[in-house]
Amino acid sequence: MKQIYNFSAGPSVLPKPVLLKAKEELLDWHGSGVSVMEMSHRGKEFVSIAEKAERDLRRLLSIPSNYRVIFLQGGATSQFAMVPMNLLRGNAKANYVHTGAWSEKAINEAEKYCQVNIAATSAADGFKSIPDVNAWKVDYEAAYLHYTSNETIGGVEFGAIPEIDEMLLVSDMSSNILSRPLDVTQFGLIYAGAQKNMGPAGITLVIVREDLLGHCLPAAPSMYDLAAHVESHSMLNTPPTFNWYLVGLVLEWLLECGGVEAIAASNQRKANKLYGYIDESDFYSNPVEPLVRSRMNVPFLLADQSLESKFLKESAAEGLIALKGHRSVGGMRASIYNAMPESGVDALISFMIGFEQRYG
Amino acid sequence: MKQIYNFSAGPSVLPKPVLLKAKEELLDWHGSGVSVMEMSHRGKEFVSIAEKAERDLRRLLSIPSNYRVIFLQGGATSQFAMVPMNLLRGNAKANYVHTGAWSEKAINEAEKYCQVNIAATSAADGFKSIPDVNAWKVDYEAAYLHYTSNETIGGVEFGAIPEIDEMLLVSDMSSNILSRPLDVTQFGLIYAGAQKNMGPAGITLVIVREDLLGHCLPAAPSMYDLAAHVESHSMLNTPPTFNWYLVGLVLEWLLECGGVEAIAASNQRKANKLYGYIDESDFYSNPVEPLVRSRMNVPFLLADQSLESKFLKESAAEGLIALKGHRSVGGMRASIYNAMPESGVDALISFMIGFEQRYG
Repeated sequence: MKQIYNFSAGPSVLPKPVLLKAKEELLDWHGSGVSVMEMSHRGKEFVSIAEKAERDLRRLLSIPSNYRVIFLQGGATSQFAMVPMNLLRGNAKANYVHTGAWSEKAINEAEKYCQVNIAATSAADGFKSIPDVNAWKVDYEAAYLHYTSNETIGGVEFGAIPEIDEMLLVSDMSSNILSRPLDVTQFGLIYAGAQKNMGPAGITLVIVREDLLGHCLPAAPSMYDLAAHVESHSMLNTPPTFNWYLVGLVLEWLLECGGVEAIAASNQRKANKLYGYIDESDFYSNPVEPLVRSRMNVPFLLADQSLESKFLKESAAEGLIALKGHRSVGGMRASIYNAMPESGVDALISFMIGFEQRYG
Repeated sequence: MKQIYNFSAGPSVLPKPVLLKAKEELLDWHGSGVSVMEMSHRGKEFVSIAEKAERDLRRLLSIPSNYRVIFLQGGATSQFAMVPMNLLRGNAKANYVHTGAWSEKAINEAEKYCQVNIAATSAADGFKSIPDVNAWKVDYEAAYLHYTSNETIGGVEFGAIPEIDEMLLVSDMSSNILSRPLDVTQFGLIYAGAQKNMGPAGITLVIVREDLLGHCLPAAPSMYDLAAHVESHSMLNTPPTFNWYLVGLVLEWLLECGGVEAIAASNQRKANKLYGYIDESDFYSNPVEPLVRSRMNVPFLLADQSLESKFLKESAAEGLIALKGHRSVGGMRASIYNAMPESGVDALISFMIGFEQRYG
């Protein structure tokens, strides 16, 4: 089989050892005689899988004991409503930072439940930057401040956690969770859909400080009550067991890779190489301000846009797939999450060089 | 490997050919070079998987074109809220039939959003029967009537669709969908979590008559708006792609088995054998009124309850696993969904005969 490098923005490439293990265990998990998919979620086998996933995650991110870890269904889109429903706690206002398409979705949903104060926005420059935190207009009477730590479409990422005193921080980390060390204690709540850095689609991680729980709006569906999920250890109803198991395999793999410090170094090397090549070239360009360029999603344009379909066709023929940019912004996008090996970035750059030589 | 028969109530046994195919395709779906888990949900490969699943389902259940089929996250528990949120359409009342633990959960959730009229309940006899439909107290001014077509804990199943003129029917078919032919045109909405007869946990089927759409409560989260899911072809956000693919494999398998007529005959044979043996025996008993006994979940008691743990231990040693009854009712329970082969029921009966001979 030809070597394929899959640059999909999500669902995205998974670590090969994870897929191999899932395949090996598919019909018979650890001698149980059944597939993980066939197990009762309340049986001791599956409970051991679930507990190990939580343990490994806590180890990877050094999650303190006053933070609870739950695995839910519904993706980040569900969290866009669950966050205000659970964290407003009688307050009618929340701060949001507007850095692209995903934070905008979070804002639109929050507006159903509260008055949204846009503390900062980079809409004016087409989301190519992130306003300096010292210039943000934070409403300190609001319940929390929400930001999207990486925008997959624009390719914009916070380099560091914004320092805002006395304000509860909430972050959508769907596309860069576990890509670098993280100080969980800076947050009230962190959420992340799994399908970029953590596993397959269909499961969402929530890490929440336990003192915030217990204030869900009464009109919220039971499935939107974070406290109920915490109390039931993510088994308020039948959880997505196989997805959970796969997340566990990814976490195991991450530990075997040396944890988030090691993967952060690898991610930085991959991003430096790709942006470095793009910046050197007159044929390709990336529009994002260098300080906030995403290490996960690298959008780039061809100087001659009429060559785009040729680029996509020829790269796919070389086994470099899913490089088309999001339909809302066009161009190309290489998503280079944790599971993308450095050899994939090297292969992409080689192809880009050759393509420029042929058509530049 | 020893032959295992898995009687889990859900997540439950999957057809062996489905697991084998999933294993075979796990790293490389149809020569694409990637796993289904790694594909963009908007790419042509996954869209073809999604469309085939819908086509096969429509064929299996003869779903008319004015019904829309969507695949969601969140299980039946999410539907307990989505149904009133979407189907009340300005009405403040809904009818519910109370036949056990699952209909009770649906009722409790609906009470958040409307006035619930209990049209019928079998609480008085401990949910061992279903009141005759002619005796139901239906409020004809209410928006709809909801019933649970099979109760997995009590082992009680509707033998036929209740005939109630001029009332929109809604049914939770999580545990018996696709186990027999179904006249979809009798319903406004049908929902079913996949993890019994249709696939792994983490994906939920909704079949809805399209003229009912477009009336979601404004305060509902976007993910609870059925019309939005219909319009986006179940891709309002990233769907649980691998779960969806597995449902597709189960539907393919069902068609290969001869469809729902053939599986219904097999299900009836399996249930007849098991209830037949239990009824013959003085050692085992099933408390449910014969006419409404579930073909999917067969709870049974041992005359001498002190033998229960011995029964579970010895049956498991024979490869007959997950026979423990639900913690709320005790005893044993054999779930014999579509994917349980008749040989599994035969093996269980043989074991039961032997156990009775040893300890009876």
